[in-house]
Amino acid sequence: MLARRLLRPATARQLTVPLLAQSYSSSSPAPKGTPDIDPSALTIEKTASPKPLLPAADLVFGRNFTDHMLSIEWTARDGWLPPRITPYQNLSLDPSACVFHYAFTCFEGMKAYKDPSNRIRLFRPDRNMHRLNRSSSRIALPTFSGPKFVELISKFVNLEDRFIPKQKGYSLYIRPTMIGTQNTLGVGPPGSALLYVIASPVGPYYPTGFKAISLEATESAVRAWPGGVGDRKLGANYAPCIVPQIDAAKRGYQQNLWLFGEEGYVTEVGTMNMFVAWVNEEGVKELITAPLDGTILEGVTRESILELARERLVPEGWKVSEEKYTIAQMKKAADEGRLLEAFGAGTAAVVSPVKAVTYRGEEIKIPLSPGKETGPLAEKFWNWMLAIQYGEVDHPWSQVISE
Amino acid sequence: MLARRLLRPATARQLTVPLLAQSYSSSSPAPKGTPDIDPSALTIEKTASPKPLLPAADLVFGRNFTDHMLSIEWTARDGWLPPRITPYQNLSLDPSACVFHYAFTCFEGMKAYKDPSNRIRLFRPDRNMHRLNRSSSRIALPTFSGPKFVELISKFVNLEDRFIPKQKGYSLYIRPTMIGTQNTLGVGPPGSALLYVIASPVGPYYPTGFKAISLEATESAVRAWPGGVGDRKLGANYAPCIVPQIDAAKRGYQQNLWLFGEEGYVTEVGTMNMFVAWVNEEGVKELITAPLDGTILEGVTRESILELARERLVPEGWKVSEEKYTIAQMKKAADEGRLLEAFGAGTAAVVSPVKAVTYRGEEIKIPLSPGKETGPLAEKFWNWMLAIQYGEVDHPWSQVISE
Repeated sequence: MLARRLLRPATARQLTVPLLAQSYSSSSPAPKGTPDIDPSALTIEKTASPKPLLPAADLVFGRNFTDHMLSIEWTARDGWLPPRITPYQNLSLDPSACVFHYAFTCFEGMKAYKDPSNRIRLFRPDRNMHRLNRSSSRIALPTFSGPKFVELISKFVNLEDRFIPKQKGYSLYIRPTMIGTQNTLGVGPPGSALLYVIASPVGPYYPTGFKAISLEATESAVRAWPGGVGDRKLGANYAPCIVPQIDAAKRGYQQNLWLFGEEGYVTEVGTMNMFVAWVNEEGVKELITAPLDGTILEGVTRESILELARERLVPEGWKVSEEKYTIAQMKKAADEGRLLEAFGAGTAAVVSPVKAVTYRGEEIKIPLSPGKETGPLAEKFWNWMLAIQYGEVDHPWSQVISE
Repeated sequence: MLARRLLRPATARQLTVPLLAQSYSSSSPAPKGTPDIDPSALTIEKTASPKPLLPAADLVFGRNFTDHMLSIEWTARDGWLPPRITPYQNLSLDPSACVFHYAFTCFEGMKAYKDPSNRIRLFRPDRNMHRLNRSSSRIALPTFSGPKFVELISKFVNLEDRFIPKQKGYSLYIRPTMIGTQNTLGVGPPGSALLYVIASPVGPYYPTGFKAISLEATESAVRAWPGGVGDRKLGANYAPCIVPQIDAAKRGYQQNLWLFGEEGYVTEVGTMNMFVAWVNEEGVKELITAPLDGTILEGVTRESILELARERLVPEGWKVSEEKYTIAQMKKAADEGRLLEAFGAGTAAVVSPVKAVTYRGEEIKIPLSPGKETGPLAEKFWNWMLAIQYGEVDHPWSQVISE
């Protein structure tokens, strides 16, 4: 029965990638001076069958999408073609398209928020654009003007206004994605690509308040390596992490804490960056996270927390460090009563308090505030970040995009 | 004009992945005991518009495909669904399908050959099945019975008989591919997948005789590392290698020779394994290739050359080694006149003679046979391999699949 679905003629209209792309040589470089993304060329085709809105309680991350999507094709010969907003629909791709064989894919995660005046806001979209360009160029996909793409995303999000939940903690998750679409099995730079944006209304990561998580420190599998691509938001960094994640889940851990090297350097959580707060060996309160040495995703939440910490915690006597640190140092700090707190940081959860890290079968317990599933620092950052994201305070990171 | 193509209704029938897959939890494990691939359930829908055959001179690797494709869907709930051979057609996938975001993709490269009696032959298909299962399981995609899938591939290849060129050196390149198709942005094991096979008639890698290549020893980018996935044929291993490949090409090198670590270990070429022949420090003629330590693709050609070398070269006094060796050792051997030969090994080229490796701007020259673009060993392996692949000699590695 299912098999029959596979082959039935498409009932919805489908995005068909131009056959012309097939004739491009895989080694032809992108000509200089081909057109950039052009918001003025945008065309909009609205859906004839708007979806019903789901009850807030039924919103599952990345499971349900809005009525439309934004798509921009690129070819090496013609550059970025006119952007289009269309009804949400399947992509129709030749089975030889290079995304299916060689993982030409990168993406971003952003959110649109409703502020108390019901205006739509984005949070530091320039940072996502910067990172997407860094990701795409690392795998020979095209780059583009960040501001112009944000302009298009804003138009798209405004069109989907009714899907943005109004409650604080809720948001519209935005997924810009770029894939290589060239139809050839030759291994080379794609001669064509598709940049598209879909959006999914999401509920709060912690619907009933914080829930601290347990991590398993992983050394059998290695997420990233110097000279590799662990600092770019490539699809290639995700699929290889799933089996270790399943293994950790079987043992009762929510996520992997990826270690690196014989020294056991703490890197990141794969879907989040990692922050640790301790009283360091010199007796100074320190908030520490791994430096951007090429193995760490350049998280927008990571960067924002570091900036907030430097502005607001340093005057209170905190030291804020982007330095390598080891799981052994975490354990020693815990043993000596110096470990204060640990949390993950990412777009989905904002901050995710960590209550324990298990390393080689031994649990490093991490303090939480009395009677709470978070420590005081994580809670502080959570409040600071949400106040900015939801426009409760005036801050340059939050950008009103309502038309 | 191109942009209009993007949105026009699909004119060809398209493979639509079942919407039901969307409702699976991304964390639901595959139930034990779901059905394996079942060749007896195969249905065949032949094309109504057979493609004209291209002239042999126009066959470009992976650019043109046969009339049909083989597809088998999998869901975590129902296991492998009935296999189908259908006209070659686009895949229709939801834009949230996990292959587009998290690189759930792995593949194989195989060839079908015509022997002097016009029978169709495959070369060690069991090795490809073994590797594809190792690849898929590493990224939480389903496994399957190798012999049953080979049975289906054989039926497919027989149907495409007219596309298999008869000339020696020509073949039908077969590309089995498995992608995750679950429609959710949650990062977890795919609840649905598609295994499909397309095929492309290809000409000889060296239409006018061997052409030795120059490699650039690359240490700025790292292809694979211990605890990573460099030994699996995942899409994720390919996209990150393209920019270094473009950079090397700009400097006049055909491929990268990937080094690893401060020691400068020679690993592989990315699309090929690497073999070096030298008189070693003990004065013994040695054929050496990097060991399968997790950073090296388990090449079928690599394995076959090693087996042939152990059977046919060891009696002649050669030592055959799967051991780590460094670029410095290669340079020293060249300086001392001990470097005999080097070549890449892979399904596409079989063997690819190497005439030079440039390391930190310095060229290590590699001897070739007088007046030839190959050394004697590479030529020997080439002849041995082709005689087996094209069925000119009787050998268990070559399997007749003609119906």
